[in-house]
Amino acid sequence: MLNFDMYIPTRIIFGKDTQKNIGALLKPHAKKVLLHYGGSSIKKSGLYDTVTASLKESGLEFVELGGVVPNPRLSLVHEGIDLCKKEGVDLILAVGGGSVIDSAKAIAVGLCYDGDVWELYEHAKSISAALPVATVLTIPAAGSESSNGSVITNEEKQRKLAFGSNLMRPLLSVMNPELFYTLPKNQIANGVADMMSHIFERYFTNTLQTDLTDGLCETTLKTIMKNALIVIQNPQNYDAWCQVGFGGTIAHNDLLGLGREQDWACHGMEHELSAIYDVAHGAGLAVLTPSWMQYVYKTNRNMFVQFAVKVMGVDGSYRDPDAIVMEGIARLRDFFKKMGLPSTLTELGIEESKFELMAKKATGAGNGSEHPLGGLKKLYRQDVLEIYKLAK
Amino acid sequence: MLNFDMYIPTRIIFGKDTQKNIGALLKPHAKKVLLHYGGSSIKKSGLYDTVTASLKESGLEFVELGGVVPNPRLSLVHEGIDLCKKEGVDLILAVGGGSVIDSAKAIAVGLCYDGDVWELYEHAKSISAALPVATVLTIPAAGSESSNGSVITNEEKQRKLAFGSNLMRPLLSVMNPELFYTLPKNQIANGVADMMSHIFERYFTNTLQTDLTDGLCETTLKTIMKNALIVIQNPQNYDAWCQVGFGGTIAHNDLLGLGREQDWACHGMEHELSAIYDVAHGAGLAVLTPSWMQYVYKTNRNMFVQFAVKVMGVDGSYRDPDAIVMEGIARLRDFFKKMGLPSTLTELGIEESKFELMAKKATGAGNGSEHPLGGLKKLYRQDVLEIYKLAK
Repeated sequence: MLNFDMYIPTRIIFGKDTQKNIGALLKPHAKKVLLHYGGSSIKKSGLYDTVTASLKESGLEFVELGGVVPNPRLSLVHEGIDLCKKEGVDLILAVGGGSVIDSAKAIAVGLCYDGDVWELYEHAKSISAALPVATVLTIPAAGSESSNGSVITNEEKQRKLAFGSNLMRPLLSVMNPELFYTLPKNQIANGVADMMSHIFERYFTNTLQTDLTDGLCETTLKTIMKNALIVIQNPQNYDAWCQVGFGGTIAHNDLLGLGREQDWACHGMEHELSAIYDVAHGAGLAVLTPSWMQYVYKTNRNMFVQFAVKVMGVDGSYRDPDAIVMEGIARLRDFFKKMGLPSTLTELGIEESKFELMAKKATGAGNGSEHPLGGLKKLYRQDVLEIYKLAK
Repeated sequence: MLNFDMYIPTRIIFGKDTQKNIGALLKPHAKKVLLHYGGSSIKKSGLYDTVTASLKESGLEFVELGGVVPNPRLSLVHEGIDLCKKEGVDLILAVGGGSVIDSAKAIAVGLCYDGDVWELYEHAKSISAALPVATVLTIPAAGSESSNGSVITNEEKQRKLAFGSNLMRPLLSVMNPELFYTLPKNQIANGVADMMSHIFERYFTNTLQTDLTDGLCETTLKTIMKNALIVIQNPQNYDAWCQVGFGGTIAHNDLLGLGREQDWACHGMEHELSAIYDVAHGAGLAVLTPSWMQYVYKTNRNMFVQFAVKVMGVDGSYRDPDAIVMEGIARLRDFFKKMGLPSTLTELGIEESKFELMAKKATGAGNGSEHPLGGLKKLYRQDVLEIYKLAK
């Protein structure tokens, strides 16, 4: 096991009716709040009214900025920064899913940074301050409600980049699984694929002697999968949502990755799909992950046997480990299909003619400074290209 | 699953050599530190020198107070409070195990409380402030390095009481498993029994629909047990210590108890042993837990079948669940024996003549305000007495 530094300070207020208390929760921390959200869904559902009523009741001033889209845009982040400066906002409340929270985090760090906020994302600069962010989660998926990261798309440059700092971990997040009841099935499925990928990226490692986090990863994956199949059939099953929802938080608060070399190749490969085609992140991950497994597993066969046996429940002959791995991958594909997720890049509308370009961009090979993706196996442009082809 | 409020802000700096950096870690948070510790072991091991050198190097002033004993005493807490007031201490650094950390926490809250600190423990008062506490852990067991609780013994009153507040969660804790290499075997075993009990107290519940935390409890228990058998044989096995050590933190930071009704009867029954006989907490728990299981399991047989199958690996006939439970309990007893832990109260030197008194005190039955112990099954004086007898 590797040395690690764990810091998961976000308070999680979980369960029925918790969103009604958001004003009182924020009161000790803020005077004027930016209420940040996406489209009209929180107005239709009544959540907007609940939240604003609670803010008012607690005597908190607020201004608002809606309009966050999936793969949240830099332009809106700039708008948010300007608005917060003008209005003297001291806390940002994101009401929405990962995109809204990521956008809120970008505003929060941009406000405390002298240059343009995109520089932070482009050059992974270190920061010394950020405005506090709080969240009311409406889509369990990205784990951004307690993670240290944010992913923003620069629409002019067609670049989707991640930036992370412990200063970006939300102060508190409210999660009421009842708010997930009205999610469309494709969003449920994409979210589940995303949270599973957050675990995969941490689980698949060459680091040895990681019993505890191996087990935490495995049980969280199994729990999410079991309960995801319930909520995709019955999106009003509160108890199953509790497991999936909190599973998504655990999946990405970094507990499961402590002391392990992490991978993150699938996220790197997927970001290029989203940047060019604006596909849903989770759908892209569901397509790429099994092909990635197929391509890399021989680098660390034992790790993939463990996955197949302990997560996917494969009971094969130990004398044919490749068959065990293949069965594990097949079961994962099957699970994604049951969730209604796509299996191929073609289904996502991604043309083979773009594979070369995406592989170049994913590995930086295009601009003369190639940096391979991945921890378990280093993936260069040619490797990424092969994985895109496998996923065709 | 029940609603919950998770707050685990303690930063954990984990791994080799981490203790050498304690001064730099504390520097942003303190000017003058109380260095709090137990006996001479940290001086013999060189840890005292390492820590004080690091504090000096970072330009931190410090005063010191040693002398914490297992089942830490109120009198020393009073001494610590007086010393910190006199010296203007602004952070307490506990270098030791759970007793030292619990004592440090008591000093930290006592300093910010107008009355006598024992009132907090006796009447579970709410507090609004506490000095920050940091720790360098030398015994993995109590989980106090990131928990919200502290247990103090009032030696005059022969009362051992717990007090908890999120303000008592340490600011940061340093854990280098190499520091555990020199622990005597009985301390290792007691520590393992204590951390396992912290999980049992959360795991055994009547709350339904708790897949995720069930799984987290089960994998953490299995990992601790597997690796505990390694370190008890070879206390210099770094990797096994990593799993046991961090397992002990996870066991008690409350992640595993989120959304579940918790039990805590065994802790309640054990505290009476420690208060009167000053026995090691973990040893007392190892004796009482299997008898508690035997006494209560019929209240929720399915829960105990799950424990036997998923944690203890029992593969019995589903048509005879009682046999599965009994085999699970037998395996737990066997595990404790392999760790060198006692099996009976007699081995601990506890006389049957005291059972009645301890049962009265544990349930408050003595002073006319009986409060049953336990969540899974409410235990009144007579129940506790029966369990002491089973454990005789």
